[in-house]
Amino acid sequence: MTEHNTAAVTDLPMKKPREGEENGASATAINGGGTGSISSVIPGWFSEISPMWPGEAHSLKIEKILFQGKSDYQDVMVFQSATYGKVLVLDGVIQLTERDECAYQEMITHLPLCSIPNPKKVLVIGGGDGGVLREVARHSSVEHIDICEIDKMVVDVSKEYFPDVAVGYEDPRVTLHVGDGVAFLKAAQEGSYDAVIVDSSDPIGPAQELFEKPFFETVARALRPGGVVCTQAESIWLHMHIIEDIVSNCRQIFKGSVNYAWTTVPTYPSGVIGFMLCSTEGPEVDFKNPVNPIDAKEDQNNKSITPLKFYNQEIHSAAFCLPSFAKKVIEAKAQK
Amino acid sequence: MTEHNTAAVTDLPMKKPREGEENGASATAINGGGTGSISSVIPGWFSEISPMWPGEAHSLKIEKILFQGKSDYQDVMVFQSATYGKVLVLDGVIQLTERDECAYQEMITHLPLCSIPNPKKVLVIGGGDGGVLREVARHSSVEHIDICEIDKMVVDVSKEYFPDVAVGYEDPRVTLHVGDGVAFLKAAQEGSYDAVIVDSSDPIGPAQELFEKPFFETVARALRPGGVVCTQAESIWLHMHIIEDIVSNCRQIFKGSVNYAWTTVPTYPSGVIGFMLCSTEGPEVDFKNPVNPIDAKEDQNNKSITPLKFYNQEIHSAAFCLPSFAKKVIEAKAQK
Repeated sequence: MTEHNTAAVTDLPMKKPREGEENGASATAINGGGTGSISSVIPGWFSEISPMWPGEAHSLKIEKILFQGKSDYQDVMVFQSATYGKVLVLDGVIQLTERDECAYQEMITHLPLCSIPNPKKVLVIGGGDGGVLREVARHSSVEHIDICEIDKMVVDVSKEYFPDVAVGYEDPRVTLHVGDGVAFLKAAQEGSYDAVIVDSSDPIGPAQELFEKPFFETVARALRPGGVVCTQAESIWLHMHIIEDIVSNCRQIFKGSVNYAWTTVPTYPSGVIGFMLCSTEGPEVDFKNPVNPIDAKEDQNNKSITPLKFYNQEIHSAAFCLPSFAKKVIEAKAQK
Repeated sequence: MTEHNTAAVTDLPMKKPREGEENGASATAINGGGTGSISSVIPGWFSEISPMWPGEAHSLKIEKILFQGKSDYQDVMVFQSATYGKVLVLDGVIQLTERDECAYQEMITHLPLCSIPNPKKVLVIGGGDGGVLREVARHSSVEHIDICEIDKMVVDVSKEYFPDVAVGYEDPRVTLHVGDGVAFLKAAQEGSYDAVIVDSSDPIGPAQELFEKPFFETVARALRPGGVVCTQAESIWLHMHIIEDIVSNCRQIFKGSVNYAWTTVPTYPSGVIGFMLCSTEGPEVDFKNPVNPIDAKEDQNNKSITPLKFYNQEIHSAAFCLPSFAKKVIEAKAQK
């Protein structure tokens, strides 16, 4: 991995937990737009409460808080949970758990990369934990992987506490750029990427810009004709209004195809997460019928890599089948 | 609806909430194997904690507790939630919320009924809330619907608090039998049903028998050749050991096809629920490619019924596509 520091970041020393916080610790995070204050509500449990999903909360039992810190951008926490392995929390919102991260990382990566032949140059925006890099690296056609993560603390924390996720950084094709994703894309050479993967947090906090129209314009500009983007696009059960806006923006900007897919991730709100998949004008991309299967290739070439846990060709196509309530809204927007 | 009382039931008067419980009430249910004790832990929130999903809990904000009672079989509670509508809770476990019940009821019903031509006689085991009846009633080919629910309190509570779900009981083709599902099936005429739908709670408590081999044998006996069963079959993320046993039992008993499907239900643990779909020896049933679509029929014939919210033909086929970790286990068991 090569590292380019393209923005000023504060290398805060990692704050180790205080005495008494280590066992039976409590943490309920109230996400009030990025303030991320942490207060005790349920003894011994972490509860995820946010205005993004009012009236409900998912809680995990804490065995031990391993790290709590405040970067220039957000609160960062890692804890050992009782039944989901280690958990990474940003501004009070669960980003990944060791038990179910496979679903998110594999789907956000292979949905776009298995949909185009021979992807060579890939950009990851966000995704500082390294899990998407791990998945991109499974594709032997890929020659270069750029990642632009705004928060260096996320990278450092992942390398220390989530080695099976951050292993993605060890691939020699990876170059890390610490800085703002929007600025990075603006500076990128036009038409230079085969695929852009936007692994962002929710649109409250540092990732807000990544859900807005100007951002999608810079993505489209950086992609080659017939290039693809896959971006984290919230939950059909909770965020249809956000999804409607994203679909509508993408329909205006991406002149190839515009699709919505989803998958199950138990520790994300409502238990699902969606992805917006679009292609630029050029060679046609049929996202629902992948042309670049990874299943077979992986068995042959990558004996040393942990096998895929979640993704396969059937679940790729199935991910684009939407419940009627979501289909109606998304197809209406996509046709406008 | 006709009502046959085939077992002794106690007609407990419904217990209305006590003063002071109505607003900002708290209820954390600890499900310790059917005891269902309810104690206050988080003010204003209901939390679902169970040995079936250790170390995690989903919580809903309570606006008002509408009903709390104890039947001969279980604790029954209804509350108005802040963002999921009214919620039905049995022994501390969420059975349905108004916001997401469509996913479960539509899938558990139409996955089996759309897989066979012209279903005429259908049996529902459990499902006392009436939601499955509402869905079965969409099929105009159906002539008779038996439902056998052990707990009359569930039926009464649903009729009082969930009229849009219990509306299923209003169909003249429905006959309610209050009693034990296993005994009902043993007494049923051999080969008499086209489809049996087992809408049970978890295998801790009154539904335990419905996950065991002798029960599946009585189901197979009651089905016509090429008849189908669909049974609630837990979560691929949480209960692979239970699912392995069910698949293994079904493979021994059902000589037609044996399949596992799943869907998203945000308020069920891990956000998904699975279904075991099997057919008896006889005319072949290809569950993945439904022969009896409901989408079109419904538009033409049932103008008065609320449209389907979740189910469609694409999501029917997609439901059988499993993540690799689940596919490996289920296909291995299914082939033995």
